Amino acid sequence: MTKKIAILGASGYTGAELVRLIHSHPDMRIAALSAERKAGQSLGAVYPHLAHLGLPDLVRIGDVEFSGIDLAFLALPHGIAHDLVRDLPEHVKVVDLSADFRLRDAAAYRKWYGLDHKAMDIQPQVAFGLPEFYRDQIARARITANTGCYVATSLLPLVPLLRARAISPEGIVIDAKSGVSGAGRALRESSLFCEVNEGFNAYGVAHHRHMGELDQELSLAAGCEVLVSFTPHLVPMSRGMMATIYASGDAAQVQSVLEALYRDEPFVSVLPLGQVPATRHVRGSNRCHIGVVADRAAGRVIVLSVLDNLVKGASGQALQCANIMLGLEETAGLDMAPAFP
Amino acid sequence: MTKKIAILGASGYTGAELVRLIHSHPDMRIAALSAERKAGQSLGAVYPHLAHLGLPDLVRIGDVEFSGIDLAFLALPHGIAHDLVRDLPEHVKVVDLSADFRLRDAAAYRKWYGLDHKAMDIQPQVAFGLPEFYRDQIARARITANTGCYVATSLLPLVPLLRARAISPEGIVIDAKSGVSGAGRALRESSLFCEVNEGFNAYGVAHHRHMGELDQELSLAAGCEVLVSFTPHLVPMSRGMMATIYASGDAAQVQSVLEALYRDEPFVSVLPLGQVPATRHVRGSNRCHIGVVADRAAGRVIVLSVLDNLVKGASGQALQCANIMLGLEETAGLDMAPAFP
Amino acid sequence: MTKKIAILGASGYTGAELVRLIHSHPDMRIAALSAERKAGQSLGAVYPHLAHLGLPDLVRIGDVEFSGIDLAFLALPHGIAHDLVRDLPEHVKVVDLSADFRLRDAAAYRKWYGLDHKAMDIQPQVAFGLPEFYRDQIARARITANTGCYVATSLLPLVPLLRARAISPEGIVIDAKSGVSGAGRALRESSLFCEVNEGFNAYGVAHHRHMGELDQELSLAAGCEVLVSFTPHLVPMSRGMMATIYASGDAAQVQSVLEALYRDEPFVSVLPLGQVPATRHVRGSNRCHIGVVADRAAGRVIVLSVLDNLVKGASGQALQCANIMLGLEETAGLDMAPAFP
Amino acid sequence: MTKKIAILGASGYTGAELVRLIHSHPDMRIAALSAERKAGQSLGAVYPHLAHLGLPDLVRIGDVEFSGIDLAFLALPHGIAHDLVRDLPEHVKVVDLSADFRLRDAAAYRKWYGLDHKAMDIQPQVAFGLPEFYRDQIARARITANTGCYVATSLLPLVPLLRARAISPEGIVIDAKSGVSGAGRALRESSLFCEVNEGFNAYGVAHHRHMGELDQELSLAAGCEVLVSFTPHLVPMSRGMMATIYASGDAAQVQSVLEALYRDEPFVSVLPLGQVPATRHVRGSNRCHIGVVADRAAGRVIVLSVLDNLVKGASGQALQCANIMLGLEETAGLDMAPAFP
Repeated sequence: MTKKIAILGASGYTGAELVRLIHSHPDMRIAALSAERKAGQSLGAVYPHLAHLGLPDLVRIGDVEFSGIDLAFLALPHGIAHDLVRDLPEHVKVVDLSADFRLRDAAAYRKWYGLDHKAMDIQPQVAFGLPEFYRDQIARARITANTGCYVATSLLPLVPLLRARAISPEGIVIDAKSGVSGAGRALRESSLFCEVNEGFNAYGVAHHRHMGELDQELSLAAGCEVLVSFTPHLVPMSRGMMATIYASGDAAQVQSVLEALYRDEPFVSVLPLGQVPATRHVRGSNRCHIGVVADRAAGRVIVLSVLDNLVKGASGQALQCANIMLGLEETAGLDMAPAFP
Repeated sequence: MTKKIAILGASGYTGAELVRLIHSHPDMRIAALSAERKAGQSLGAVYPHLAHLGLPDLVRIGDVEFSGIDLAFLALPHGIAHDLVRDLPEHVKVVDLSADFRLRDAAAYRKWYGLDHKAMDIQPQVAFGLPEFYRDQIARARITANTGCYVATSLLPLVPLLRARAISPEGIVIDAKSGVSGAGRALRESSLFCEVNEGFNAYGVAHHRHMGELDQELSLAAGCEVLVSFTPHLVPMSRGMMATIYASGDAAQVQSVLEALYRDEPFVSVLPLGQVPATRHVRGSNRCHIGVVADRAAGRVIVLSVLDNLVKGASGQALQCANIMLGLEETAGLDMAPAFP
Repeated sequence: MTKKIAILGASGYTGAELVRLIHSHPDMRIAALSAERKAGQSLGAVYPHLAHLGLPDLVRIGDVEFSGIDLAFLALPHGIAHDLVRDLPEHVKVVDLSADFRLRDAAAYRKWYGLDHKAMDIQPQVAFGLPEFYRDQIARARITANTGCYVATSLLPLVPLLRARAISPEGIVIDAKSGVSGAGRALRESSLFCEVNEGFNAYGVAHHRHMGELDQELSLAAGCEVLVSFTPHLVPMSRGMMATIYASGDAAQVQSVLEALYRDEPFVSVLPLGQVPATRHVRGSNRCHIGVVADRAAGRVIVLSVLDNLVKGASGQALQCANIMLGLEETAGLDMAPAFP
Repeated sequence: MTKKIAILGASGYTGAELVRLIHSHPDMRIAALSAERKAGQSLGAVYPHLAHLGLPDLVRIGDVEFSGIDLAFLALPHGIAHDLVRDLPEHVKVVDLSADFRLRDAAAYRKWYGLDHKAMDIQPQVAFGLPEFYRDQIARARITANTGCYVATSLLPLVPLLRARAISPEGIVIDAKSGVSGAGRALRESSLFCEVNEGFNAYGVAHHRHMGELDQELSLAAGCEVLVSFTPHLVPMSRGMMATIYASGDAAQVQSVLEALYRDEPFVSVLPLGQVPATRHVRGSNRCHIGVVADRAAGRVIVLSVLDNLVKGASGQALQCANIMLGLEETAGLDMAPAFP
């Protein structure tokens, strides 16, 4: 039976991407769209590319009729979901794309987001939204905290390697690069075309918010505290994300651990040893491509991971989680081929 | 029953785009892929973004087993299709993406393509591949000549306006702009990133090949010879095409003719009067958006038309034709929402 | 003797470009920089690429010491210059980059800018800042109104052709394209990277503000009222502007009029007949390139004009005017070669 | 007295950039331009943006009249300079932009470039073309081997830090990113607009040719063998290069060593501690900006270095070397401000 979906915060890029994906989903239908400041407008007024889809107009969250909703995607700024999930009827499942439920530790949440965690009582029931590692929890959860894009890009190669002790937990460097859509549609000088185009820079060096999630999940995987060097960079492109990871380990073993784990995963491909992935080869799709190269220094390995930050790094991943939570085919609505060029 | 499809010339961008689209088609399966110079390679070696789709390897056309093929897409350079269609078994339907069968007049073909037309006996049976105007012919045809991208962008607004005499056939100006994928994957200095990026220029001014098709179809629509001013430009983007059309006519009447014609068309939207379309709002989709603006000079109208040159301007249009020829739902595999940002 | 220069409104892109150009000027020195909202900051805090130049900090206009200033560039929003120029000491010459003094008719100013012209008494003494046509007036003027970028791109080819009656003043179409820096550094959703990148669109169709200036100067050149069709478009690039102009006239005569006029102009090149210009070939320079192509319709000509909107379309042009006003070599500080790729 | 300059290999991007820079040089004049395959053409036919400069036509190297030439820039493919420099008259000084004289060790040259070094007798007299470290040798040299772009970007921060033992020579990671002009104007599929645009990827992972130079110079600076992890990436932009360097060391000490060394260097700026550089802030200029950030892991530091690969990474650096060799002001022709946006 077709599941009825609400998207709360539909005026951001991840909201629009959810609409795009669900439009092609065989078993879902969008029943409500919210956007506080754009309430009363049609979705087409905010996103002309979606105008022809015949979707409900934007309303305030308070005006959403949740009685028939099966699942709500929360594509809202940080700090809102804690209260909001309490107000939602029990029968509504939730995939939260914000960071509000990603950190299991209240102090870490406060440190990285500068806010008090107001729903620590709910936190233990929340699944961490990376299906490749938490599929069972997600299937049972009412709430799933969708991972951040940098985190997904980094964890997909690193978690299995740390679990298998194929790399050392010490001295890992993650040099990450993102397209500009990761910054959302907010009006910031640093997101203007002329400030980004024909240029490249790092930002948030040594203190990016996603570090909290990285620390949590990598430490869990390694069974000891892991503190990576992590530097995000801004690439003059709209979509795409890449992590270049430097670690101590044997490339052949790294390759073999990743191949074994991902052989049957629908959305993760491990390239042949020595081959490097490119963000454009996953563009628009829910896929993650991982490449492994032996560094010339003995015992050093370089692992490269790419995905589309709006799909496998955000809305696609969220939809994958939702499929699992609703008992649908995990790949439903997510099997489109990448769009290149 | 699933239709078996061959793509001849799968190593170009339109070939790759056909693969992408057909992958999501419910009633088609790719049974053969040809590429003369890349024969023997996997498709993934040529297009890594398609590597995971489990498709047949590339072969030479001579090695394609056509016995089970229902329809072949010809994504080959100009000058090959004339001979090739004679060699194909009768049961194989053909959508030709080259210009070989677009011109009904041998002299025009020679003038614009510098080649002799070698299949004038077949030409009369060929349908012109613009379903919005030639749906019936396409349904009956064994061969459809897919329109060129500039031509589709221009004809979709202009043909109905000329037919309805809503604009004058005199003095029409088509100022057209294209993304770089229109130039294909061939190695040309003018297609290099550094030669295109952060710049803009016209090309083929007053003598672009697509003029032959434009002349033919516009004259047919108007019932008199139409000779437009047509200037193509290159935009530093991969996908997207726009035509800014200047004509004499009444904007309200123009709007009303277009609205009436396209009200029930699945892939063409006419925006509210005065609203302008953008290529990014149709990106990756089979859609064409048309906007109409009254010029400030009385009796002058500006019509703007956008589409994705690789989809509604090439492979999507071809798939739409193929659906019609095979008796499938016309929109099958083509209903995806545009991808923005 | 070195001239002392003030730039009022130094925090916008045209202000920054003035700083870049004057830095290489042999006879000018920047003595004051103003920016109301950024007052108190160093220029490097606002524009890190200029941090090493050892320039004065940003101050409010009211805090500029004008006693030693020879010339002030006004790179301010529309509506400020009318009052401001009254307050400036008489010895300070002014090049105004806003539209405030471009229109000689108060009604036209009100129509296009929605403001009352508050300095009509001063207006008659103002030179129109296109040196190729108004060199003598500029030399004598205390105030020069720098032309807008679209206007410069269009007038450089059109004014001589209308004056020489080489084209008809009827039915001229100007299809114009601009890089994004023309929109300035203001925070607008439509200027965000993801809203511009990998896309193309028209804007301000049939009612762009620059039409007032176009009407005024083209009518003056033709000796009769000229009302062009003018459509600006946004190109996903930072710098560059192109006008594709369609008119009735003989291409050979058009070519010969333009060649004769521009033979000795330092910054305008007329390409050989049939050759088309590209914005990237003038990038970063004060140059305008013009190409002429005979249209295939008899008696129709296509004229293409390109420049860098921030240089010959704004700050470079302003500096050229300033050189003339100050009795310096007209090309001083403006002779750099274009930067390609 | 004005120096007469030859550029051998003027049809590549570095050749064109040399022309651009020398055009603004007060004490140099271009007397000869060579390009084997384009011989007989004007420079404007190959680079329209340079057409108006009144330069000599392209000739074959064999047709260059070297008698009046003071200095020749060699912007030729690898493997040509060894023989060529023997054939040049003794009075002609040489700045070689290829890799032919960068490696002091014949085996290393063979390993990284697959060619035999044919001028080992000359090699000891060649200066390594990084003026910040080899100013005196360059001043005395007849031949200077201009450093590669990745190498310049990496050595400018790393050499002083290794010399001062402010960082450990063990475990250094250089994650490098380059604009596409670094690949030159050669026709390669991987350099096509559509293959680069809206995407990001690594290449040459663990075996890029520039490693030979890096090894040589870093080991020399450290006084022991240094083997860095080095991964180059391709950014969808024309110009710009960045190295993100991870090392063990104290950020405050790193900052202080760099500040002390570069305080009086005209082209290198060390940003305040914690501030990150951006390639767009050095675009078109001969500048290198370096930023230092303390990593959150104790004793780890992240150093970021940016330059324009065609200027400080190639032609600007070469001109800086030439100035020194010819006894001219080192900054002559190189003082232009960066061009942003």
